Order: sequence, then structure tokens, then C-alpha cells
Amino acid sequence: MTRVESNPSPPVVYLDGNSLGRPSPGLADRLARFVDGEWATSLIGGWSSEGWWDLPLTVGDRIGRLIGAAAGQVVVGESTSVWWYKLLRVGAGFGVERIVVEDGAFPTDRYLVDAVASEQGLEVVVVPRFRLVDEAARAGTLVACCHVDYRSGERADLRAIGAVARASGSYVLTDLSHSVGAMELRLDDDGIDLAVGCTYKYLAAGPGAPAFAYVAARHLGAAQPIPGWIGHREPFAMADVYAPADGIRSFLSGTPPVLSLVALDHALDRFDGLDGSELRRRSLSLTEEFLRGADELLAPHGFEPVTPRDAERRGSQVSLRHPEAWGFVQAAIEDGVIGDFRAPDLARFGFAPIDTTAQDVAEALTRLARLAADPHRWQGRGRPDASRAATPT
Amino acid sequence: MTRVESNPSPPVVYLDGNSLGRPSPGLADRLARFVDGEWATSLIGGWSSEGWWDLPLTVGDRIGRLIGAAAGQVVVGESTSVWWYKLLRVGAGFGVERIVVEDGAFPTDRYLVDAVASEQGLEVVVVPRFRLVDEAARAGTLVACCHVDYRSGERADLRAIGAVARASGSYVLTDLSHSVGAMELRLDDDGIDLAVGCTYKYLAAGPGAPAFAYVAARHLGAAQPIPGWIGHREPFAMADVYAPADGIRSFLSGTPPVLSLVALDHALDRFDGLDGSELRRRSLSLTEEFLRGADELLAPHGFEPVTPRDAERRGSQVSLRHPEAWGFVQAAIEDGVIGDFRAPDLARFGFAPIDTTAQDVAEALTRLARLAADPHRWQGRGRPDASRAATPT
Repeated sequence: MTRVESNPSPPVVYLDGNSLGRPSPGLADRLARFVDGEWATSLIGGWSSEGWWDLPLTVGDRIGRLIGAAAGQVVVGESTSVWWYKLLRVGAGFGVERIVVEDGAFPTDRYLVDAVASEQGLEVVVVPRFRLVDEAARAGTLVACCHVDYRSGERADLRAIGAVARASGSYVLTDLSHSVGAMELRLDDDGIDLAVGCTYKYLAAGPGAPAFAYVAARHLGAAQPIPGWIGHREPFAMADVYAPADGIRSFLSGTPPVLSLVALDHALDRFDGLDGSELRRRSLSLTEEFLRGADELLAPHGFEPVTPRDAERRGSQVSLRHPEAWGFVQAAIEDGVIGDFRAPDLARFGFAPIDTTAQDVAEALTRLARLAADPHRWQGRGRPDASRAATPT
Repeated sequence: MTRVESNPSPPVVYLDGNSLGRPSPGLADRLARFVDGEWATSLIGGWSSEGWWDLPLTVGDRIGRLIGAAAGQVVVGESTSVWWYKLLRVGAGFGVERIVVEDGAFPTDRYLVDAVASEQGLEVVVVPRFRLVDEAARAGTLVACCHVDYRSGERADLRAIGAVARASGSYVLTDLSHSVGAMELRLDDDGIDLAVGCTYKYLAAGPGAPAFAYVAARHLGAAQPIPGWIGHREPFAMADVYAPADGIRSFLSGTPPVLSLVALDHALDRFDGLDGSELRRRSLSLTEEFLRGADELLAPHGFEPVTPRDAERRGSQVSLRHPEAWGFVQAAIEDGVIGDFRAPDLARFGFAPIDTTAQDVAEALTRLARLAADPHRWQGRGRPDASRAATPT
């Protein structure tokens, strides 16, 4: 009986779009048009005739619409890590004395706070996430926090942090990797100074797709640590001395990654006509339904939701704590419900408002409940080697 | 008559593969298989099942074969600029006192030497390229040079620079953007310490394709300035404290750009079975033939080759100096011969050994000679605005 019920190839319910979104319909065709059309026929001329040169800015402005940024403040290229490093350096250049980072920050974010603080002679202050607002009140602080925590799915109150920081002579750099594409964001209105974000999660632009950076208009004249000719005021003068371009372009370093920018541009088409409040409405509906089902069907088997029940404090994922979470997630994948595991004891399920449906939630709950009730299938499995790939962030 | 001869749509002769190579046959299909196959079906599991996690290293080793690097010393991801920054910081960490850079270095390379020297308190010494070997003899020097000069096409003697540096307590970081894929390279044998290179020129992996870094085995324990969780010894432990992985992996920062790594992997297929000496043989044959023709057909119209005639000192391009080079290059493009212009007075023609043929050279010379003899078509044209895109490096 169990064998039949745990048939390994049911239709997949994908609840990991918070780690890697699914490809947009039509992407392969779009890439073929790029390769065999734009690139093969325009060749070097494509940099101007096809708009490649400006893609970091034009695609940036499309993302800007999703994060509440007026045009000219968002740029795309490089990895989230590199942007985080660059903007930490920019923030350090504001003359702050310390960087406040949350306990349990995403590892790269934390490593780079430590690295930049060390090289720039700044203090690092590690606090629980609920302390971020208060810490922003101390003048000379750069708050460097994730908007939505990758483990718990807890959402910080950017508006409050931003308001306190501005009133106190402090600054805010935030990582939007787990929020962009899943909710309303109002960076301009919230007075956020700097932000970075990933495009391969809810924006679904592909594994390792290029990241974006937001620099508030008032900081566009700031210096960044990796100046390149592409951000020069007159790149084709090929001058020996760097002179930054006006605006967000000066934050670029290397040549735009055109192929992956085209894929990102295509992925963003799905967000046309959807505003943040609609994404948020869908997201909350999905996470609420999943939480309700988890309370009813999974809590009796020892699964404890760690994601806030207060909608205001919730991102677009639900994490369940269980000492055997690793085995449960593996068995769930065998049953066609793809979530992921975060050490030491979290089963994490993400809800991408762009393509996750209420039916997905219902089907996932049915399968997970059946699995939870059959503990010999998932308890006592060996834990993974942490040095090898499981699933990125 | 002239109208007929300068018909704007003859078959294109593409001599700009030193700036942007042409797409490899079959690339669109390969990308479709990636999107609709690997990504759409393996989803998050692709990081392990499809080898995405290791692509920076597996593709790196394929490039390693082209640059004379034993396995485990080359890694791919990020832009050339970011690698140059990171490896300048690594080199600064060797305890050098000064960075030597050539006069007329590629702008980004120069800007980053200045930036890193400034932040690390090092002296910058700018010398003509012929002085690089001698400067390497002063202990405590990091020589940071382009292997092949992007303007003149002059090739530096890496073997000599490397030998002198190693004997003198100095170090060498070189930018292979204008040599990889067009000639034999022997970084291990030449004792080079660090290198970066672009993959969208002779390797033809697409506009803005990810760059690579080489770190000699003896330096693999060095610290880099942008540590990320992906380079951590145990990434999935999600630890708060950075501990570098063994080997070249620790030089990674962000998540691998998988789509563009797949495109690069595909582009490298064309180089299978071709060793560097064969690429070099083809390259020299093409540049020699073009130089011979330029002497005969273009020199009488005032075009002066600035690329060395000595094969040992020549890369895979030929640059011709003429005060009206801008207009000449534009008119040549109208005649279907695509080269590019480098300020203030160079017409630059590149020869990609992977797909440029002797017939291309002959046809280009025929058309360029006809054009040169018709000066009203190209002399007196306005020069471009240096702040806008012409053609990247």
C-alpha cells in the first residue's frame, strides 16, 4: 500500500521558487532569437543597435518598478555577492562607524560585513532581527540586513528601519533576495539608502542570473570600489584617469552579461501589469493556506511553523521545524513535493506568486500529510555532507 | 560606379572577433536543451544532478587546457573587471610595495590598479610596455599587465617577465583577454602568479560572457577580498564565520551564472582537439597575410601598421594608424568589412583563428584597398561622441 501511495513520479508540486524560479514560457525561443538573430547578425554592432550597452539600466528600471524605485536608481549585472560587497563599501564611505547585521544573516552577507568592516576599520554589531530598528537609531550606523530571512521567512519592517535611520544620521543597506517579485516594495518612499537583490528566485530569471543594485538618488554621486571603463563618463575616450559617469551607470564594473540580461528581461515580462500589491495578495493567500493546513495536518506530527503568523511580518515562504526535517524533505521530494532543507532542522516551502497556485498548496498538503503519518519513510535518514551542493539560497 | 561598388550589403567579412566572437553553431539548441530540459525538469535539483554547482570549476579546467594551467587553478564567473580587482587584492596581499602597470593599459585595468593601490597604500609605477621585464626585477613588485595590448596588438613576453619576477621576489598578474583562444599560453611553465581573461572575444562565448581567473597552485591558500558562502569549506552548514574551501573554489564569490556558463561550455567545444600551437599557427598566418596586403595596398594611402612585424611580439590583430581612421572604419563596415576603431587614430582588425579564414583576409584586403583609393567616401567624417557605445574592448 505504502509503495503505491509513495509512487515516485506523481506530477511535481514545486515549492522552491524562493530558491530557483521556474523558466518563463517562451524563454528558449527568446534566447534563440537573441543568438541567431541579434548576436549572429548584428555582431559587434549589437552593443548599440540592439541596446546591449544599456541593458543593465533598462532592465534595472524594469526591476525598479517592482521595488518602488523611480527610474535611474537600479542597475543589473554581477552577482548578489559582488553587489553586496560594493554597496557595503559605498555605505562605509558615508562615514559610518559601525555596521549592524542581524544574527543568522545569510552567510555571504555576514562574511562580507565582516570583511568590509575589517578592511575599513569599522565595528560589527550582531543583533537579533527585532533589534534592527532600535540599532538604526544610533547615529553613524550602517544597518545591513536581509529584508526577508532566508531561514524563517520573517520579514523586517523596512519602513520603520528606514525612518529611524534617516532621522538618526544612519543608513540602510538591505538584501531583497527573498522579497523582490513576491511583494510590494517601496524603497524610495521608505527612505532606504542602498539595496541588492537576486533575480533567480521569485523573478525566475535562471540559476545564477545577474543581480541588481539600488542606489537612492541622493547617493548617486558616491564612489564605488571597483570602477570600470564602462562606468566612465566617456568610455570610448579610453582615458587613463577614471571619471565616473553621471547617475547609476558609474556603479557598473564589468561588461554587461548580455545573454543572461536577455533571459532576465524575458522573465520580467511575466510581471508586466502585476503590481506589488497583487503579488503580495497572492503570496499571503498561499502562505496563509499552507500555514492553516500545516497546523491541522503536520503539527500533530511534530512540525512547528517558525514563520510569523502575523502577515505583516511574513515573507513568501513557510518554514517548519522538525528534528528530522532533512529526511522529511527528501521523502517529500520523492513524493513530488519539492521544498528544501535548511540546517539544522528546517523544512522550507516557498510560494512564488507568479506561478504557484492554490491547487499546488492543496495537493502539497495532501501529500505531506500522508508522508508525515508514515514516519518510517523519512525518520532516521542520514544528514548530508555540508560541503556539497544541496540547494542554494 | 562608386554606388555599385559600395553596395551596402555584400557578404560580411568579420574581423572583430577580438572584440566579440561569433556564436558557435548549435548554441541556440544547446540553450533550449538547458532551459526546457535541465532547468525546467531538474529545477532546484539541477545544482547537483546537472553539475551546475561545479560548472565554474569544470569549465575553468577546460579553459585551463588553453592557457597551460594544470587542473584546479582556473575558475569562471563574474566579470573580467571583478576578477582583476580581486586578483589585484590577492597580489597586494603578497606583501608587495608597488604595482607596475603599462602605459596605455586597458582603462579598467588601469583604474583598478589605481584604486587598489590607493586603498592598500601601494605605489603605482607606470612604464612603457618594453620596460615590464626590467621592472619585474625590483623585489616587492606586482607587475599587472595585459598580455596583448588592445590597441597595438603588441604581445608581451610573459615567459621573460615571469622568470625575472620569480627570481626577484616579484609577482605577475596578467590580463589574457586579447590572447586566450588565439595562441599558445603556458602560465604554469612561465611561472605566472595570477591571471584573468575574457571569454567573449576569441573564445566567442557571447557578449559579456563570464570571465575566468587563474591562481597558480602555490597561491591557492591566499585570501580574496569578496568571500562568499559558495567558497566556504562547508557551504551548507551556513556558518556565521567564513572558512575557505580548499583550492580554487575559495576564490568564488557569488552563485555561478549557469546559463552563460552553459553557453561558454558550448563555445569551448570548438576548441576541443585544437592545441594552442595550432591556434597560433593559424593566427600568425592570417595576421602575416593581412600585414603583407596592408603594406602593398593600404600603406600608399597613409595607413601605418603599428602592430609588430616580429611574430614573437604580435597578438592576433593588426592595427593601422591613420588620422582619418574613424571614417575609414565606418565606411569599411558599410562595405561589409567589420573591424573597429580605437581612439584617437587606429583602425583595428582582429583574426579569430577559430573561424577567420584566408579567404576572409583576401576579400577584406580587396574591399579595403578599393575603399582606401576612394577617400571622399571616408575622409572628413565626424568623430563619435566618446560617451556613447561604439564597440567594447
